Amino acid sequence: MGIYLDNAATSFPKPERVYKAIDDYLRHTGVSAGRGAYKLALEADRIVYEARSHLGRLFNIKDVSRIVFTFNVTEALNLAIKGLLKEGDHVITTSMEHNAVWRPLKRLERERGIKITALPCPQGGSFRLRDLQESIRPETKMIVMLHASNVTGALMPVEEVGKIARKKGIPFLVDAAQTAGAYPIDVEAMNIDLLAFTGHKGLMGPQGTGGLYIREGFEPEPLIEGGTGSESILEEQPRVLPDRYEAGTQNVAGLAGLKAAVKFLLETGVENIRKKELELLGYLQEGLKRIPGLEIYGPPDVTSKVGVVSFNLTSVSAGEVAYVLDEVYGIMVRSGLHCAPCAHRSIGTLERGAVRVSLGYFNTRDDIDTLLAALRDISGRLRG
Amino acid sequence: MGIYLDNAATSFPKPERVYKAIDDYLRHTGVSAGRGAYKLALEADRIVYEARSHLGRLFNIKDVSRIVFTFNVTEALNLAIKGLLKEGDHVITTSMEHNAVWRPLKRLERERGIKITALPCPQGGSFRLRDLQESIRPETKMIVMLHASNVTGALMPVEEVGKIARKKGIPFLVDAAQTAGAYPIDVEAMNIDLLAFTGHKGLMGPQGTGGLYIREGFEPEPLIEGGTGSESILEEQPRVLPDRYEAGTQNVAGLAGLKAAVKFLLETGVENIRKKELELLGYLQEGLKRIPGLEIYGPPDVTSKVGVVSFNLTSVSAGEVAYVLDEVYGIMVRSGLHCAPCAHRSIGTLERGAVRVSLGYFNTRDDIDTLLAALRDISGRLRG
Repeated sequence: MGIYLDNAATSFPKPERVYKAIDDYLRHTGVSAGRGAYKLALEADRIVYEARSHLGRLFNIKDVSRIVFTFNVTEALNLAIKGLLKEGDHVITTSMEHNAVWRPLKRLERERGIKITALPCPQGGSFRLRDLQESIRPETKMIVMLHASNVTGALMPVEEVGKIARKKGIPFLVDAAQTAGAYPIDVEAMNIDLLAFTGHKGLMGPQGTGGLYIREGFEPEPLIEGGTGSESILEEQPRVLPDRYEAGTQNVAGLAGLKAAVKFLLETGVENIRKKELELLGYLQEGLKRIPGLEIYGPPDVTSKVGVVSFNLTSVSAGEVAYVLDEVYGIMVRSGLHCAPCAHRSIGTLERGAVRVSLGYFNTRDDIDTLLAALRDISGRLRG
Repeated sequence: MGIYLDNAATSFPKPERVYKAIDDYLRHTGVSAGRGAYKLALEADRIVYEARSHLGRLFNIKDVSRIVFTFNVTEALNLAIKGLLKEGDHVITTSMEHNAVWRPLKRLERERGIKITALPCPQGGSFRLRDLQESIRPETKMIVMLHASNVTGALMPVEEVGKIARKKGIPFLVDAAQTAGAYPIDVEAMNIDLLAFTGHKGLMGPQGTGGLYIREGFEPEPLIEGGTGSESILEEQPRVLPDRYEAGTQNVAGLAGLKAAVKFLLETGVENIRKKELELLGYLQEGLKRIPGLEIYGPPDVTSKVGVVSFNLTSVSAGEVAYVLDEVYGIMVRSGLHCAPCAHRSIGTLERGAVRVSLGYFNTRDDIDTLLAALRDISGRLRG
């Protein structure tokens, strides 16, 4: 089926046990969680609880009832942003954000008159901490940023930002779409107040899963109201978590897969996953550098990145490179803007886009050798 | 594994092909839809498109780009209600609504000062059309109701309401949680402007799927902003459907299952499913009537119901009946308020709740015989 290098969109393949857990749930449990009291319903409840508790171990979250599940990380970010920011608030973010952060912020700018400061990130890397500190105002009510860019892979200094945010008493929301499962996250050590994650990328679970950790003391307004299976008589969402933010039937099949995936991560160790990805990333980046006419965007130092590299070949469009890689070589990568026009503006590719290669735990050096040979080929043939 | 009679919560089991479609997608396609241009990504796009187009056939929707997928029917209802109702609008609904309609309406009552008229539904049946007509005001901006009650099974006169709504130019939103797939729905014949559905009940797909049909001319504000894989450069959601309302990664595994499920429905014919359910329902209701001390709620005529029956036994609590049915007889039913306190108020069971039995396409007369024998037993033993 070819070589898959689009893991920043979704990880593929998943660990075998993920497929099995989903199929087992669907065939043998199948019922809704948080509703019935019969034994099979309690089994569904247990699956959901264990998914939550594995995630708690992964992110160092003690009260796992404060991990609420959502459809995807986009919903989690919308819940945190729209649920907390009010008329006239000021928010600090970066110039590298994905549309999952940028579009909700722009909507609140239109509707609630919030003020946005986007910290510049030269060359698609990180911002200067001094810029962050100088941007803080009395009315700053949130710092929100992605943990790592889905375009250049650049890691943001989340630990340092967390310290500043905590000291100033500003809620700190982290979009971990590109890091959860691929890079160690500790909400205590990093002083993260709100952690939005997706289940289907680094966490290796299926699509249709994601969530938001909400530190005690934070009470975003719910984004979605509906049945919670608890305190049904109330005309508003119950106060208790996770019910308050989990309206309607949950994706238990997806959570069964996510539970198995996070178990795999806990057994394997995120540090080991990171180590393997760093090795592959270094090998990839060194190889790319030696291809004539290939320009790499973002930080040159792989230790300040996750396994994502964007680049362009001189005189060949990004779309053409991606097309030929798939069509001729069976290699799957992404071209375009990757739902992150801000990031492409930062690296100067808003007009032409870029080719993005993103690694996963199951990629090998062979995959990268094949990619590099193909790119050398394309670079030689299409330039002429 | 026992007898499953909680199909109003989620249908179980699903057709074999649903399990296979999900596993096939996860193992062999696996990638995101609407993002990449490589062949496997186009295969994912095709799965999502076919799910949409099968649903279009099922509901008689010609422009299937106007079917947008959501996490569940609750999100679909929140999108329609919060996206369309504005400050001071008046909305007409019924006294039988699920919290997925009632709680969003109550939130807008608090936040936007909307006015709500809930048409009384005596004995958990339908409302009087005259009451509806008399409730219409110049500022009535929506009629929203469930198609069938998840507590009593009572069908609402959606066709007649559709005619009135169309004539008066009032947007008509139908919550088809209990009917989609189990009862024929034709958005043209019924003049439905917005149809909210779930994928995992009558449609026989997996959890984590649902959607909203939005008739041309209606443009709810999006509930969730984020990446859409299209027009990424825009700072707001693109205008084009379905992208406008499908932010972030979609649940393609779930939609692969839903596609297979709806194919099964189209081949089987919803009329035939309805016919089988009516037979089982009649058999169940006749049997229940003969049990001493058992009170059935809702319409006595099965043709005005879907396959849901709620009841209580004199002097035995609903919770106890459900517990003993599961523990002693291996029969799964639900007790409590079923996320629909309004409906329980209508039938006078807000305090004590009720036992709910809900049928699915794969139930048999044998299942019902076993349930009836168990209830006779419980009624005899626990009363004494």
